[in-house]
Amino acid sequence: MSAQPNQKQQPATAADGITPRAVDYGQWYLDIVKRADLADHSSVRGCMVIKPHGYAIWEKLQRELDDRFKATGHVNAYFPLFIPLSFLAKEEEHAAGFAKECAVVTHYRLKSLDGKVGVDPESKLEEPLVVRPTSETIIWAQYKNWIQSYRDLPLLINQWANVVRWEMRTRLFLRTAEFLWQEGHTAHATEAEAREEVSRMLAVYADVAENVMGVPVVRGHKTEGERFAGALDTQCIEGMMQDGKALQMGTSHYLGQNFAKSADVKFLNKDGQLEYVHATSWGVSTRLIGALIMTHSDDNGLILPPKLAPIHVVIVPIYKSAEEQARTTAEAQAVATELRAQGWSVKVDDREGLQPGAKYYEWERKGVPVRIEVGPKDLEKGSLCVVRRFVLEKDGESEQELRKRKKQFLPRAEAIANMPALLAALQKELLERARAMRDKRTRIIDTLEEYAEFFKGDGGFAWVHWAGTRDDEDTMAKRFETSIRCLPFADQIPEAGRGPGKCILTGQPSAQRVLMAKAY
Amino acid sequence: MSAQPNQKQQPATAADGITPRAVDYGQWYLDIVKRADLADHSSVRGCMVIKPHGYAIWEKLQRELDDRFKATGHVNAYFPLFIPLSFLAKEEEHAAGFAKECAVVTHYRLKSLDGKVGVDPESKLEEPLVVRPTSETIIWAQYKNWIQSYRDLPLLINQWANVVRWEMRTRLFLRTAEFLWQEGHTAHATEAEAREEVSRMLAVYADVAENVMGVPVVRGHKTEGERFAGALDTQCIEGMMQDGKALQMGTSHYLGQNFAKSADVKFLNKDGQLEYVHATSWGVSTRLIGALIMTHSDDNGLILPPKLAPIHVVIVPIYKSAEEQARTTAEAQAVATELRAQGWSVKVDDREGLQPGAKYYEWERKGVPVRIEVGPKDLEKGSLCVVRRFVLEKDGESEQELRKRKKQFLPRAEAIANMPALLAALQKELLERARAMRDKRTRIIDTLEEYAEFFKGDGGFAWVHWAGTRDDEDTMAKRFETSIRCLPFADQIPEAGRGPGKCILTGQPSAQRVLMAKAY
Repeated sequence: MSAQPNQKQQPATAADGITPRAVDYGQWYLDIVKRADLADHSSVRGCMVIKPHGYAIWEKLQRELDDRFKATGHVNAYFPLFIPLSFLAKEEEHAAGFAKECAVVTHYRLKSLDGKVGVDPESKLEEPLVVRPTSETIIWAQYKNWIQSYRDLPLLINQWANVVRWEMRTRLFLRTAEFLWQEGHTAHATEAEAREEVSRMLAVYADVAENVMGVPVVRGHKTEGERFAGALDTQCIEGMMQDGKALQMGTSHYLGQNFAKSADVKFLNKDGQLEYVHATSWGVSTRLIGALIMTHSDDNGLILPPKLAPIHVVIVPIYKSAEEQARTTAEAQAVATELRAQGWSVKVDDREGLQPGAKYYEWERKGVPVRIEVGPKDLEKGSLCVVRRFVLEKDGESEQELRKRKKQFLPRAEAIANMPALLAALQKELLERARAMRDKRTRIIDTLEEYAEFFKGDGGFAWVHWAGTRDDEDTMAKRFETSIRCLPFADQIPEAGRGPGKCILTGQPSAQRVLMAKAY
Repeated sequence: MSAQPNQKQQPATAADGITPRAVDYGQWYLDIVKRADLADHSSVRGCMVIKPHGYAIWEKLQRELDDRFKATGHVNAYFPLFIPLSFLAKEEEHAAGFAKECAVVTHYRLKSLDGKVGVDPESKLEEPLVVRPTSETIIWAQYKNWIQSYRDLPLLINQWANVVRWEMRTRLFLRTAEFLWQEGHTAHATEAEAREEVSRMLAVYADVAENVMGVPVVRGHKTEGERFAGALDTQCIEGMMQDGKALQMGTSHYLGQNFAKSADVKFLNKDGQLEYVHATSWGVSTRLIGALIMTHSDDNGLILPPKLAPIHVVIVPIYKSAEEQARTTAEAQAVATELRAQGWSVKVDDREGLQPGAKYYEWERKGVPVRIEVGPKDLEKGSLCVVRRFVLEKDGESEQELRKRKKQFLPRAEAIANMPALLAALQKELLERARAMRDKRTRIIDTLEEYAEFFKGDGGFAWVHWAGTRDDEDTMAKRFETSIRCLPFADQIPEAGRGPGKCILTGQPSAQRVLMAKAY
């Protein structure tokens, strides 16, 4: 039984229909999404289909996140998909920021009209329902019934759900009309506790980004203009993609008492007084899969960190005769059994009528971290051919030396015993490689000339002093297509760039640098 | 940090606001849902909020199902929430059965109108979008691109999703406008393979119902009139609730080539000929939580099988002085640590300002299978007081004897070492108890007089011979409020009722009995 849909036989070439990054970065990204079987466009404008390989990565990411949410005291719940229009009207600032591009349900019945299925005009809803773009309003309407005293706090709830924002320009995983996400919504007795929660969850996101996804991130606060609608503080993690652009990967918001006030959620404090509750919300989405792709992949396809790989090791038997096929396939199965006993997900690719090369390219494209080839000679020698999906490049290394490090013939027992160390190394090296890439495209910049030069192309991360207004931010956006990605936590600034200085645009004094970049 | 929201202190009475089953069964059900903190009505008509305790049960059920789906070769994917209206129009028979009561999205933007947020009339969609009531049409539109040759088959995909059916009369978990479910959608080269899949998945559902949920089920086929819209065969599992009514708990459909034809999905078979693909679909939903509640719970609250219990054991320290509090709480924590090492989820309820009795009732209400009480005397004796959430009643047993079996003082080491056996026994006894309840309300009936008598009240399961028409089925429904729950697989009929006979209504010959009951 084949569990992997869409295993069409592709021509066995290295590039296999993947546009090189250097030629067209945007097309390269879409090619990876398609060729690695991660997602598809659907018949519905702006909505994507997450294919099994892409969804399996999302499931692993969910598990990593969910385990951390639970370890920090949160529980999951589920709230309605629909939000009455009046709820959005209530929280004006929030609605202004969010409720513009929404799917609106206005009718609840279909009927046959002249032999065709149509919307029954008599089924018009008294109040239109908005498909949730985010759930603060509907959740806080519920919290009103759940919170009465300080004993009910903190209320630490997370929801895994689909949300809809009617985006006009969509891109698979990065920006789609419907997407999957988690949204945490917590209620606290004090501002201090709520702010602590905001930081705690941002730390969880940074931990998952770096130690699970292998994507280094900068942590900081959003500027006032970039804050979540209704938030007093929005914290974020920002990663750098291979084209040097920034991608916002997760946000955590302190919402003050805004939502508590509009939903009238008060609690009796320990002194017997009624107070409004303090709120936070925080979320990450399937956009993270876009970040994963754009951070690690190469011109041959997807590269996955072992912690998120649905398949860790693929084993390909190599043979010319039926007799060789029987022996190498049996050995492949035996090796798979031993590796599975170590806890790895292993696929033996024993499909017939397909050349080994075609199999290699397929699994390379799909990002499987390790491939093992088992041929008749390996059986004779008692060895296995172990191929890493990537190696960290070393300065001055020849193509041949690199290939030798990538593909190694090892004694069978050693190859198997080394698998945990090999996969751990791949996990670690991906983060290192991404960090090196980021550092290479990061500059401490003090003059507009240098800034202009840096952002002539896609640029990278620029650490600059800033003391401008929101209008000044717009000026930078117009001139350079850049924005302030965050006002970083102090320890996030490169050491050479710490301390006060003068705003790159206005020359006004600035206490510390901000992170500027072009962004997705 | 308290992870359990809504821990309001309730008055410490046994009943605690739960209407006894004997008084009002319907109200009892709703009281359990509310008092066990499983779900709430929301601000949106017909949509429920699944509260953390209810959602934790759903998560456990999902895991049990998902593991079995994967073990049988399926993978998960995600398809759009919205279905273009024309897709439903295409598959007429399907649309007629399903697409009546649907939420319809007609606009995609909100705007401020006279200072109020309203629907932007200029954002009307060219084609309305239906919020999925089920996903056959949108998924098969995608399969068209994924299936070309026999090598692409079988395609074995499952989706976890929310769906919406605009139900007019809703009931928490059992029937809501929005609910959570999984829907499997598979494609096969032959009818035989597809039918095998239908049976395989029904067996998975029956396994989960009986061996995880502890709910015995009858397996069979639906009658033509009760089949899923567009199916050639609908198989189902039917459970009996404590009021004797049947609840359909899961269905698995053979869809023939209907969807392949309307979406034009053909494949090249091994002989190089183009054929339409054979389809199945199968699903279970959050309705199963309703089944769980109505099968096991009692007048004191929810009863959960250990395999689905978010908390297996709650430990309550008992004390009068601060010194006793310190000692008994430390012991509670120590016992918890040892039980957690066995793999159980354990809660130490060390909340202050709450009497032990109030704690007992709360956890009883929430269905925790085992409670351990730790008092100063237990510390002295080196014992623990272990209380089961329920015991199987024995004939002729006194109230006191029963209570003695329910609450036992055991040497500490024994109590801990016995926990796996105790929880396994509770799991097994729940199924036994439910089976005994079902058998008690099951009759083999051959005359309409006896049938009328049996269904004067809520009745139960009636095994009767049937050879009537669909009109005759309607007659039975009108006269007795009963329906044919299924045409059972032969081995599902009680032995005493096997073999041919005469239709209870028409007197015509019948090859085997069918299952009739009132139903949810």
